[in-house]
Amino acid sequence: MARAVNIAILGLGVVGGGVEKILSENREIIKARLFRNLQEEIEIRLKWIFGKDLPKKEELKPLFTSKIEDITEDEDVDIVIETMGGIEPATSFIERCLCAGKHVISANKAAIATAGGKLEKLALENRVKFMYEASVGGTIPVLQGIRDGLVANEILSIRGIVNGTTNYILSAMYEEGQAFEDVLKKAQELGFAEADPASDVDGFDAMYKLAILCYLAYGEYPSLEGIKRESLRNVSLEDVANAKKQGKKLKYVASAEKSEDGTLDLSVSVQEIAEDDQLYGIDGVINAVVVECDRAQKVLFSGAGAGSQPTASAIISDLVRIIEYL
Amino acid sequence: MARAVNIAILGLGVVGGGVEKILSENREIIKARLFRNLQEEIEIRLKWIFGKDLPKKEELKPLFTSKIEDITEDEDVDIVIETMGGIEPATSFIERCLCAGKHVISANKAAIATAGGKLEKLALENRVKFMYEASVGGTIPVLQGIRDGLVANEILSIRGIVNGTTNYILSAMYEEGQAFEDVLKKAQELGFAEADPASDVDGFDAMYKLAILCYLAYGEYPSLEGIKRESLRNVSLEDVANAKKQGKKLKYVASAEKSEDGTLDLSVSVQEIAEDDQLYGIDGVINAVVVECDRAQKVLFSGAGAGSQPTASAIISDLVRIIEYL
Repeated sequence: MARAVNIAILGLGVVGGGVEKILSENREIIKARLFRNLQEEIEIRLKWIFGKDLPKKEELKPLFTSKIEDITEDEDVDIVIETMGGIEPATSFIERCLCAGKHVISANKAAIATAGGKLEKLALENRVKFMYEASVGGTIPVLQGIRDGLVANEILSIRGIVNGTTNYILSAMYEEGQAFEDVLKKAQELGFAEADPASDVDGFDAMYKLAILCYLAYGEYPSLEGIKRESLRNVSLEDVANAKKQGKKLKYVASAEKSEDGTLDLSVSVQEIAEDDQLYGIDGVINAVVVECDRAQKVLFSGAGAGSQPTASAIISDLVRIIEYL
Repeated sequence: MARAVNIAILGLGVVGGGVEKILSENREIIKARLFRNLQEEIEIRLKWIFGKDLPKKEELKPLFTSKIEDITEDEDVDIVIETMGGIEPATSFIERCLCAGKHVISANKAAIATAGGKLEKLALENRVKFMYEASVGGTIPVLQGIRDGLVANEILSIRGIVNGTTNYILSAMYEEGQAFEDVLKKAQELGFAEADPASDVDGFDAMYKLAILCYLAYGEYPSLEGIKRESLRNVSLEDVANAKKQGKKLKYVASAEKSEDGTLDLSVSVQEIAEDDQLYGIDGVINAVVVECDRAQKVLFSGAGAGSQPTASAIISDLVRIIEYL
């Protein structure tokens, strides 16, 4: 008989809905891989969906609740997936789930970057896992790459294009010579820039992601105030053209570098990137992170930084890791 | 008090020596990360070095043995790292260690590609881990990326530059217009092509690595005879120049693609790569693998495909994973 693992999803929006979709459509693939690793049949059961509005799919309606207690007090729930976004009430809900002994997976970079230290501590105290692969670089397994794959290394620097919207804007300015405001408007119409674009174009999103990368690489969350943050709004078509003349592209780069005295230099800034730089070819909504290490040298991870299915793919990778750990 | 984990290294050559070096030089970094994840002090102790010749370092000489039984019969040994290379006696030694209840880490693509199915079965039967991140792509965490990071996905195709020597040769032919034989000779002088270059330039090395990637992606080792293998020896400077005229580069690509009837089309071949292909910018000894998925889209992993320290970095990532599992 299959062993059941019961999960709850907080927020069935673009990402949460994507998780439900993959778990349903790729059920057999995921089951087969879990069996290969565990030699045991595992049945992943979606038990609760928390949100404000009833799910649209008929078969999901019975799972709906708008009371977080239904989940925290349900002893059968093993793992909670938080895809609500925003700092509150998401952070409080994550805390309550951890304290209730639930493993938590989150895609919420804002919540993690601001409360990550506390959340990690709560997870340790309650002997549960807190994982958030989807919070940086969307689908790209860069957090597990740093935490596990590069574990033997001192990390010398991290440089990443971690915001797809701004990379799309810069790519369009470069390739089509469109002005910042025009491209932003188009991105908003296409639905991958928010009506209020501050989070993307003023670098808050990249700043949160940089903080999370730093935690993985250096073991501590940096103070967000310590991250230099330059807005993309000041970039003109002329700046882009001048760089292009020199064979370079402007990229909006989140960067952590160890200075000689051992402190970290953290910034989100517009940089001129030369053709021999691994970030040069990263165009459009694609994300990439280059991790420079004392042993492994430079490792590049690249892929879709956003989108329902790519982001959900990263969440399910955390889910499977937790199930293997259970 | 710290918990001790005892390890043995089979073969203290370039890679095995690199493992010893990192474990010694980055001891504190590795310890701190293990502590962060396990909340427990772990002491990794090198207990045995198996080989033909006494190690050169004075402090390692007492650990030396040339009898594999010293390791298989030592109940204190938890994990064996096999860095001997070659199919035999490495495969037999891996088997004996697994049967003796030791976890095994190997960098030996030839042994794994030819006996992987049997070795995986032995590991399951003996309830131990068998891991081999360093066998493909050197330092790049691409195996864990496929196994864990992309676990939610159907893998549609894998395309990789997985042999650094041949990529170096093609890059030099492209950039400096040197003939195949001349570049090969130079690579041999520099020490990163073997005296007998068949393994690299006739595609055996890439074929083995492709087989391992397939196992991770599809759950079964393909028959090596079923992999179409084209030699690089037939590539002329004219071929390289013709491709260049069309804005393309020749690359030696290991590729697995699902055909419409669900079978796998496997090959190691010289391909013309256009500028918008993620493999276009992968030059010199760098390796890269692009994994195309139904949900995560295309994910690129890239980094140093060989070398003592980069390869040892991958081995230690397996070591840490096993320690976390113990």
